[in-house]
Amino acid sequence: MKKRDLKLKIKDLKESSGTHSPSIDTLLSLIGDFKIKIDACFLSNPYATELFLNYLDNDLVKTNQLKNILEYYPPQNRDVAKYISKAIGINSKNIFVGNGAIEIIQAILHNFVRSKVVVILPTFSSYYEFLKEDTDVLFYTLDKNNNFTLDVKNYISFIKTHRPNTLVLLNPNNPNGFYLTKSEIEEILENTKYVENVIIDESFIHFAYENLDFSQISSEYLITKYENLVIIKSMSKDFGIAGIRAGYAVMNSKRVDYLLKNGYLWNVSGLANYFFKIYTEDDFTKKYDIARKKYILNTMLFFKELETIKYIHVYPSKANFALIELKNNIKSFDYTIDLLLNSGIYVRDCSDKIGLNGSFIRVASRTFEENVQIITALKNYS
Amino acid sequence: MKKRDLKLKIKDLKESSGTHSPSIDTLLSLIGDFKIKIDACFLSNPYATELFLNYLDNDLVKTNQLKNILEYYPPQNRDVAKYISKAIGINSKNIFVGNGAIEIIQAILHNFVRSKVVVILPTFSSYYEFLKEDTDVLFYTLDKNNNFTLDVKNYISFIKTHRPNTLVLLNPNNPNGFYLTKSEIEEILENTKYVENVIIDESFIHFAYENLDFSQISSEYLITKYENLVIIKSMSKDFGIAGIRAGYAVMNSKRVDYLLKNGYLWNVSGLANYFFKIYTEDDFTKKYDIARKKYILNTMLFFKELETIKYIHVYPSKANFALIELKNNIKSFDYTIDLLLNSGIYVRDCSDKIGLNGSFIRVASRTFEENVQIITALKNYS
Repeated sequence: MKKRDLKLKIKDLKESSGTHSPSIDTLLSLIGDFKIKIDACFLSNPYATELFLNYLDNDLVKTNQLKNILEYYPPQNRDVAKYISKAIGINSKNIFVGNGAIEIIQAILHNFVRSKVVVILPTFSSYYEFLKEDTDVLFYTLDKNNNFTLDVKNYISFIKTHRPNTLVLLNPNNPNGFYLTKSEIEEILENTKYVENVIIDESFIHFAYENLDFSQISSEYLITKYENLVIIKSMSKDFGIAGIRAGYAVMNSKRVDYLLKNGYLWNVSGLANYFFKIYTEDDFTKKYDIARKKYILNTMLFFKELETIKYIHVYPSKANFALIELKNNIKSFDYTIDLLLNSGIYVRDCSDKIGLNGSFIRVASRTFEENVQIITALKNYS
Repeated sequence: MKKRDLKLKIKDLKESSGTHSPSIDTLLSLIGDFKIKIDACFLSNPYATELFLNYLDNDLVKTNQLKNILEYYPPQNRDVAKYISKAIGINSKNIFVGNGAIEIIQAILHNFVRSKVVVILPTFSSYYEFLKEDTDVLFYTLDKNNNFTLDVKNYISFIKTHRPNTLVLLNPNNPNGFYLTKSEIEEILENTKYVENVIIDESFIHFAYENLDFSQISSEYLITKYENLVIIKSMSKDFGIAGIRAGYAVMNSKRVDYLLKNGYLWNVSGLANYFFKIYTEDDFTKKYDIARKKYILNTMLFFKELETIKYIHVYPSKANFALIELKNNIKSFDYTIDLLLNSGIYVRDCSDKIGLNGSFIRVASRTFEENVQIITALKNYS
């Protein structure tokens, strides 16, 4: 197939996938001979994937235990929550387990969100797309001139003025990776107690840091202090296991009870249950933390290198991806396809993201070796 | 632990699991030294599990492809539906893919069911437990003296009198395995066109037969004729893969559109997607059909043997399990625990099933060798 025809085909595929990237499976079946060498659209820690695969291989494959994972019903939601409780030190009554964070987002939006929601722009589109038809959404748009960061004081006064029923914050935010510090989060919570639901999505929080000891951050412990707080956590990104669909939320126990009374009894697969089981193991978490820190350092270096490239502007990020603005009138869709077809590197065109005016792409950090290739390809672009 | 203490503990566990059996994982962690040798509570075709495991081993384990299944996001719902479409010959626009049938049950009950639902008793309890609080449920109770079978004429006139918004039928029914023939299903559909939703759960239909060629049965093809028809299908039972959480529903395309507009975008795991992919393969489906027929014959033989046991009454079944009434004042809970602790055989105590007055257990058919052991244990009971 010629490059031009392929470009049109990819455009079609992208449009039919809505505001989300088509899966790599679907894309691969389309591009045929052209190969994706590096999927820099994909937001996950590859070192963590290797670690999990290693455990899986030793625990299940080599011991012929894979059958048990496939054949039998996994434990019910509440029993899986006990593993998570042990891993994160939060009472299991406050934990709701999801078939990926996306199921939890849907459950929260459909069961607890009424009337008006304030969503930050740009952000992960499911937070407004999956709302019920009768829910109003009010956008709080981040300013490009302020590096797409959130001005906490301004945000709090915006909330005070508009009195929404629900707030949604991603920390770090997707697609630009801006990070709210622990004290900023507390400041927001302290000033929005009258809001019914404060949803904080911490799917990328394992990649953030406040100082150079890179210790793990989370607002989960605040659940006992703020009744309106709902923390959503995907396992896909930090543990590199998007395919097994695992996530959880921490929230008031009444909300957990309500959700479980209405379903979600067997929404965890055998593999996801196995993951949560090893997540409680000391040996695993120690090794995971090394993989996590290695990846953060790798990503810091990657961002530094990206910043040296002249025709792009890199926005500050504490996630495992960077939002990049293309200068010189380069169009993001064309750029994305050219990069794919010339170097086999697939980055995220952000032209479909509401709240981003200009020409933006999002580039994920991968392994050290892959990042070197991404940098080279970006530098060689002309 | 002493047998008596253990009995009390199991009773506790059972009560805390609601109306569903605790998972075998949870139970095993409790009974410790006592071992479950055969889980005859578990409703799945073990020969199909073996077949799938064989494919998985060749396709993913031996080729080192397991990583792809775990690391990447699986395709979106609509793309997975295309595989199912190819496998069952129904337009993919009419197919909604679920994280197990249970997710679909929940989605249907919460999105399309309003006002009054008629549910048959005894049946799978989620169909009334997961209803929204403001939905009325009306039970149509099957008569023990009529072998818990459904009198179609009587049922139709019951519906006509009560004018519900939704009907729920399991075919074959769980826990007794009664089967409605193709012509009976059509008779019901023809006379209930005014009902908004007719839900038929065909999770056990691959085990049913109308004649001795044992060809596969399904009402899926009726979807174009009856707009109100929703067919729900679990893959857990017939394909023996409860752990991967896979199911689908066939329904009017407007309903599929509605559900996908509200979520369910990435609810299929990498393994479930892999399953649906091989389900389209000729080689797999041929081998599966052999495993299916072998299991049906095995089950027929099992039922014949059960019928020779004096202290029980076996109700007619065309599923992979039989409902059994214990005579001589034997209590089903005690019987179940005694059988587990004496022979390592775990059967389903039905004392928590609404609509069953008396002392009932449900026994699943397993492999030929296991069925021999089950029969022996039941015969030796005193």
